Amino acid sequence: MADLFSKPLDKPLFERMVIVGVGLIGSSLLRAARQRNLVKTLVAADCSADVCARVAEIGIADEIFQDANQAVRGADLVILCTPVGNIGTVAAEIAPHLRAGAILSDVGSVKASVVAAVQPHLSQDVHFVPAHPVAGTEYSGPDAGFSTLFSERWCILTPPEGSDPDAVKKLQEFWTEIGSNVEIMTPAHHDLVLAITSHVPHLIAYNIVGTAADLEEVTQSEVIKFSAGGFRDFTRIAASDPTMWRDIFLNNKEAVLEMLGRFNEDLAALQRMIRWGDGQGLSDLFTRTRAIRRSIIAQGQDAAAADFGRRGASGEKPQ
Amino acid sequence: MADLFSKPLDKPLFERMVIVGVGLIGSSLLRAARQRNLVKTLVAADCSADVCARVAEIGIADEIFQDANQAVRGADLVILCTPVGNIGTVAAEIAPHLRAGAILSDVGSVKASVVAAVQPHLSQDVHFVPAHPVAGTEYSGPDAGFSTLFSERWCILTPPEGSDPDAVKKLQEFWTEIGSNVEIMTPAHHDLVLAITSHVPHLIAYNIVGTAADLEEVTQSEVIKFSAGGFRDFTRIAASDPTMWRDIFLNNKEAVLEMLGRFNEDLAALQRMIRWGDGQGLSDLFTRTRAIRRSIIAQGQDAAAADFGRRGASGEKPQ
Repeated sequence: MADLFSKPLDKPLFERMVIVGVGLIGSSLLRAARQRNLVKTLVAADCSADVCARVAEIGIADEIFQDANQAVRGADLVILCTPVGNIGTVAAEIAPHLRAGAILSDVGSVKASVVAAVQPHLSQDVHFVPAHPVAGTEYSGPDAGFSTLFSERWCILTPPEGSDPDAVKKLQEFWTEIGSNVEIMTPAHHDLVLAITSHVPHLIAYNIVGTAADLEEVTQSEVIKFSAGGFRDFTRIAASDPTMWRDIFLNNKEAVLEMLGRFNEDLAALQRMIRWGDGQGLSDLFTRTRAIRRSIIAQGQDAAAADFGRRGASGEKPQ
Repeated sequence: MADLFSKPLDKPLFERMVIVGVGLIGSSLLRAARQRNLVKTLVAADCSADVCARVAEIGIADEIFQDANQAVRGADLVILCTPVGNIGTVAAEIAPHLRAGAILSDVGSVKASVVAAVQPHLSQDVHFVPAHPVAGTEYSGPDAGFSTLFSERWCILTPPEGSDPDAVKKLQEFWTEIGSNVEIMTPAHHDLVLAITSHVPHLIAYNIVGTAADLEEVTQSEVIKFSAGGFRDFTRIAASDPTMWRDIFLNNKEAVLEMLGRFNEDLAALQRMIRWGDGQGLSDLFTRTRAIRRSIIAQGQDAAAADFGRRGASGEKPQ
C-alpha cells in the first residue's frame, strides 16, 4: 500500500519514539513509522523478556528495553500501548524519566479514565495527548502487527483542557502520515461514541458465544459446524484479547452500562414483536438497518464483499 | 474453484429442475447445477416479471416462467426458494401440477413450520425432502448468486417421518455434487440449532444497529465513521433481506424466544460483572470464547484473515 503515501518526509518528525508495550498496536506503530521514515530512532519497551526477544528477531526496532524507565530517557515521543488498566501505573513509573517538552500519548480504547489515571503523575513540561486509533484485529502480540493497520482508519485525539496546541498538531501529523484520519473530541464524548460502536458490540459478541457454548440441547460441534449462518461473525470479534477487553469494560463502565440499557430496551421491544407476530414492525426495523450498512461501505469503513471475506474478494462482488 | 470437483458427471442427476423464486439462493443453485452438469433442463420460475427478465438477460436458465404451475409440469425436482412465509401458499398452488415421483424440496431457514405448511397439500406420490443450505450473503436478487456459494458449506436435510429413502439419497447427492456437506436431522432440532447459530445472532445485530441509529448523544455520522471498532461487523449481517428475516422470526418463534431468553440471562450476568467490577469473571468468559473461534477456523467455516476481510487476504495473515 506504499502508493497511498505520496512521498517520504525530508526529515523525521521525531528523534526518538518509544513504544511501551509491543503488541498488535505497538508493533504496527513501529512498522508504520519505519516505513514512512517518521522517526530517527525507534525504541521498543516491553516488560516481557519473551516479547523483547521476539521484537529483536523480527527487527522492527533500533533499541529494545525491558525497563521502560531506561527506554524513555531523551525521547521526544512516548506512546503507551499497554492494556488500559495498566496505563496509569506505567505513566507513574516513567514520569520522572521523561524529558522536558516530550509528548506522551497512548492508544487506549477508553479515554476519560486514562486521562484521570495519567495526568496527575506528569510534570507541567510534558505534553500529554491521549489518542485512540480505531483499528485492530482479533490477533495479539508483536507478530500480529502490520504497517498498514491504521491506513484509512480514524484516530481520535482527546487532548485535555489547556493542552499545548503545537504538541497536538505534531501528534496529529504523525497519525496523518501513517494513513489515519484524525478527529479531535473530548474524552467523555469519545467514551460514549466508542461504547456504542465498539464496546457494546464486543460485549454482546462475547455474550452470545458464551451462551452457545453452554447449551445442552445443541452440541458445541453443531454450533461450530453451522456457524456460517451468522454466528461465525460474532466469534471473530469475541476472539479479541481478553485482558484488553476486561480493562475496557472496567474503565468505561458508565457509558457501557448506559448504551447496554438502551440495547436491552430495544431488544425487549423486538422480542415482544416476535412473540405477538408483529411482522410489520420487524420488517420496518430490518429495512432501516440496511441504510446504515450502505453508508459504512460508501465511506470506506468496510468492504462490500458479498461473502463475509471468505473468498478473499476485496470489495468486488463474486461472480 | 472448479478444481474442487474431481470430474463432471457422465449423466445428469435430474431431467428437469425447477427453481421457484430466483433470488440469491435460487440463482446460485441454477449456476451451480449448470456448472456441474447436474440437470438436463434448468427451469426458473418467479412471480416478478422484472426478475424473469433479468434471469433471461444473465442466461442462467433454459426456460423461464412467471407462472410456477406451468413451470413445474413434468419436473423431477422442484426447489422452492421463496421466503419462508410464502412456501406453504406456493406449495398449495403447484401441488396439483407435480408429476408422480417428483422430489419437492425447499431452502427455507426454518423447517418445522415449513413441513407443517407444505405436507398437507401434497399427494402421496410426491416426495417432500426439506433442505436448508447454511450459506448466504447479505445480498439479494438473481444477480447476487454465484456457483460456489454452497461449496464447503453445510446443507441440512430434514426429511419427515416415512420419507422415501431413495428420494432423500438423490437430493443428498445433488447437494454433495455442488460442494456441500450434508447432515440429516429432525425439523425441530434443526430449528433449535439454527436459532442459536443464525437467528439470534441476526436478531441482536439488527437490534444494535437500530439502537445506534436512535441515539441523540452520538450522531449517526459518528457511528458510521468509527464503525471499524466492531460495529461494522454487525451491520453486515443486519443488511440481510428484510422479508426473509421477518418470516424466519415469525416462523421459528419458540426456538428463537427460548435462545433469546438464555442470551438475556447471560447478558444480565455480564452487565452485573461490569457494574461490580468483576474483572476475573470478565476475563474468564473472554478467554473461553477464544477457543470456539479457533475451532471454527480449524473446521474451515471461516477464514483466519486478521483484518475482518478488509484487505482481501484469504486466510493468510497480513504482513
